[in-house]
Amino acid sequence: MSTNGLVCFTNCLLPQEDGGLVEKDLWIDESRGVILDAQVTFFERNERPDRIIDLGGNILSPGLIDIQLNGAYGFDFSVYDGDYEAYKQGMKMIAEKIVETGVTSLVPTIITQEKSLYPKLLELLQPFSTPTSASLLGWHAEGPFLNMAKRGAHAPPFLLSAPEGLKSFENTYGAQNLVDSEDWLIGADGECGVRIITAAPEIKGVMSAVQELSKRGVVFSIGHSVASSEIATAAVVSGARLITHLFNAMPQLHHRDPSIIGLLGASPHISARAAATEEFPTSASPLATSVMSGVISEAFEYQSSPATPVKPGISRVGSRSELHLEKGQVADMTFDRPFYDMIVDGIHSHPNSVRLAYSAYPDGCILITDAMKMLDPNLRDGAHEWRDGQRIVKEGDKLYLEGTNTLAGSVVTLDKCVRNFSRFTGCSLGEAIKCATFNPAKCLGIEDRKGTLRPGADADLIVLDRQGNLVSTWVKGRQVWGTDTTCAT
Amino acid sequence: MSTNGLVCFTNCLLPQEDGGLVEKDLWIDESRGVILDAQVTFFERNERPDRIIDLGGNILSPGLIDIQLNGAYGFDFSVYDGDYEAYKQGMKMIAEKIVETGVTSLVPTIITQEKSLYPKLLELLQPFSTPTSASLLGWHAEGPFLNMAKRGAHAPPFLLSAPEGLKSFENTYGAQNLVDSEDWLIGADGECGVRIITAAPEIKGVMSAVQELSKRGVVFSIGHSVASSEIATAAVVSGARLITHLFNAMPQLHHRDPSIIGLLGASPHISARAAATEEFPTSASPLATSVMSGVISEAFEYQSSPATPVKPGISRVGSRSELHLEKGQVADMTFDRPFYDMIVDGIHSHPNSVRLAYSAYPDGCILITDAMKMLDPNLRDGAHEWRDGQRIVKEGDKLYLEGTNTLAGSVVTLDKCVRNFSRFTGCSLGEAIKCATFNPAKCLGIEDRKGTLRPGADADLIVLDRQGNLVSTWVKGRQVWGTDTTCAT
Repeated sequence: MSTNGLVCFTNCLLPQEDGGLVEKDLWIDESRGVILDAQVTFFERNERPDRIIDLGGNILSPGLIDIQLNGAYGFDFSVYDGDYEAYKQGMKMIAEKIVETGVTSLVPTIITQEKSLYPKLLELLQPFSTPTSASLLGWHAEGPFLNMAKRGAHAPPFLLSAPEGLKSFENTYGAQNLVDSEDWLIGADGECGVRIITAAPEIKGVMSAVQELSKRGVVFSIGHSVASSEIATAAVVSGARLITHLFNAMPQLHHRDPSIIGLLGASPHISARAAATEEFPTSASPLATSVMSGVISEAFEYQSSPATPVKPGISRVGSRSELHLEKGQVADMTFDRPFYDMIVDGIHSHPNSVRLAYSAYPDGCILITDAMKMLDPNLRDGAHEWRDGQRIVKEGDKLYLEGTNTLAGSVVTLDKCVRNFSRFTGCSLGEAIKCATFNPAKCLGIEDRKGTLRPGADADLIVLDRQGNLVSTWVKGRQVWGTDTTCAT
Repeated sequence: MSTNGLVCFTNCLLPQEDGGLVEKDLWIDESRGVILDAQVTFFERNERPDRIIDLGGNILSPGLIDIQLNGAYGFDFSVYDGDYEAYKQGMKMIAEKIVETGVTSLVPTIITQEKSLYPKLLELLQPFSTPTSASLLGWHAEGPFLNMAKRGAHAPPFLLSAPEGLKSFENTYGAQNLVDSEDWLIGADGECGVRIITAAPEIKGVMSAVQELSKRGVVFSIGHSVASSEIATAAVVSGARLITHLFNAMPQLHHRDPSIIGLLGASPHISARAAATEEFPTSASPLATSVMSGVISEAFEYQSSPATPVKPGISRVGSRSELHLEKGQVADMTFDRPFYDMIVDGIHSHPNSVRLAYSAYPDGCILITDAMKMLDPNLRDGAHEWRDGQRIVKEGDKLYLEGTNTLAGSVVTLDKCVRNFSRFTGCSLGEAIKCATFNPAKCLGIEDRKGTLRPGADADLIVLDRQGNLVSTWVKGRQVWGTDTTCAT
């Protein structure tokens, strides 16, 4: 149809990285599947588009990114019975179908497994996509280094500690799955797949692995944890950059030990000089105090692994501060608050809690579905077969074990989370979209390629009406799903 | 010294009502003790000042307002042994001394008393000031309608329920102390004194009194309470406009029932139409759901007093929406989040908690000391006599019962809270000042007279250096305290 492959979307609103919505055209190269710089293409090179697509005033957004999805359409990423082809088919099926919810990138999540299953499962976990499907960006390993007290649906016998620190992580996930890879998204064969690890930093040996995992580009996420403010702060100082399903599977916010949730209120700029000259809260836990005052105490050394040699000094690795610890040292560092993800289905957290978190730290907010294999926008309400002979009842976005009130995960779609979020917080649709596009991309360090409309980024796009309802989904410049055909001319 | 009484402060930064600090002169009329409109005085009327005071680049702020102070300098507002003169002397002593902490207005707080003491105590509680002292604005009655489970230091035998609703309040505090008075600050003799009531809305009969108390100009404050999200929301809909010492003496933030703290995340604009057409969180409590969806359920009617006849319809009283309830009615109302006060001594709440709350709702934040009679910036650390033969140990801003770790209130000064707050939250000094001046004044509805630099307001002023340290205090245009004399020329 096209000759030069240039497509210009017009009469549309483009979400900006600051949450704004701006009336502007978007140019893409359909053949290469990338977004173009309109300035260069049109004004400087004077090229004309093959196609002009009038979006009738709708919103043209980057495709949504779901960094925590357990399964969908009946397939569960955590279940592998040894049939390689069937598993690959399941991956492909989800990747192709999920675009109907506006998701064009996702990080499949495997919950805690029996240890020997990890190497088999992780073999399958390279980034994956087809020309008409969402991209699987690599895997999110939720467990097994979780706290028993906050295990949620994770199987108690499989939970582990990490007595050998990083080595325990490598022994579990496989060392080859945790190697550093600068350009993992570009994705050659054999690319390692673990992109996010959710673990509890208070579990023996976990804290000592955070720094090295982070250096290798793995997002360390605090979750299923009872970490005190002290330990949670230390994890972030070591490199943790995400909190898994904020509010769920962690302590409530206690005003004197606000714990993991309190990280959203942590001061980003902690000057040793300013704090060291004034007294600091005596009720704060020793490490929180030492970290906040910038003076490293023994409590902190205890957290660092004896296996990891520490040398004094602060260096920068990527966008993170890195802290080398030595007792008595004054650390003049900055502290980046972690991203945090939330299941905004109106069930897992009260709308007021969602708004509290968001207003505390808007730029860190990420929307996830944490959806179970029952996710399917077309699934009817009622009882459905589950596992071990149990049945699950679906009632709207709510899932519970038949005969109980026990919540059994989520079946909300991410496009609906965006609408819920805007309604619960009073933020604009542009700001809500940011939490499901740019923020997750930035957390993963891929904000040049995904979750953005920057020139050179993948032309993974969605069209939403002004109420946030999905109109169409585009993958690498091609429409792969739509409620109508008016914009495909 | 002056002839026309005009004083011009120059070379100073003035805190604005939006939290900014602006380089600008301030004109006052020393003889009338009020702030002038420089535009009118200087440019239009072409008057010249008698005195020009060069503040050397310091900050010239409205005087601080403490809406919760239990006592200071050894005097306890809650202790009255029948000696009228001694009590009046105590009031005067505090009013005169407290200016050394930058406070020029305060709301003395009486904790729960034996019921028969209230009429005697409240006789003394009219607004009070001298030409060189801070103004006592009327009283804050904290108790006796509190929840036993969150009683803190309040005496269990004296806690009450309010089975007769408003009548129980009148019987306790005295009906004459709860009459409506439009211009209470202007303060004639016999002016009623109860300005703030802290009570637990879940206690029998309390909820039904909220609306009428609020109409009469009393600030109803939610505190010492275990109110669910449902009940807390209903209290605010009924007129509650403050939360007493946020975080302390209330449930932790639970994500599915965020309770009182969650009010900071409540959506201010709740449109019945928008919410009623979409499903709402099924896990939310019945009233929260009914309030959020704008449809009044039975749960809500239960809260309204049978003694108060309800008629359908929404009306506006002052700046508040007023909701008349009828089952099944669709309420198209706005919802103003309540102010909340915090003791920012670094002890009662972790700095991260303080920042979380502030970032959720900056315009609602009020700094208080909640200080005990031991408040005295010159008091030495160590053990001091308390009551009933007990002794209290002071360690910096921390007070605890000798031989225990039990916190026994605060001795922090409000000017120090301002500095702490700026440091904990990363906000500017101008924004921190706002939380101890304009915000409390607005909560009390006196922002034209106090906590502001508006023309016509009382010339109650403080000078702070750029680190927020107090340099001098001025009451009604006269300097009443200062660390130096350079600005008195």
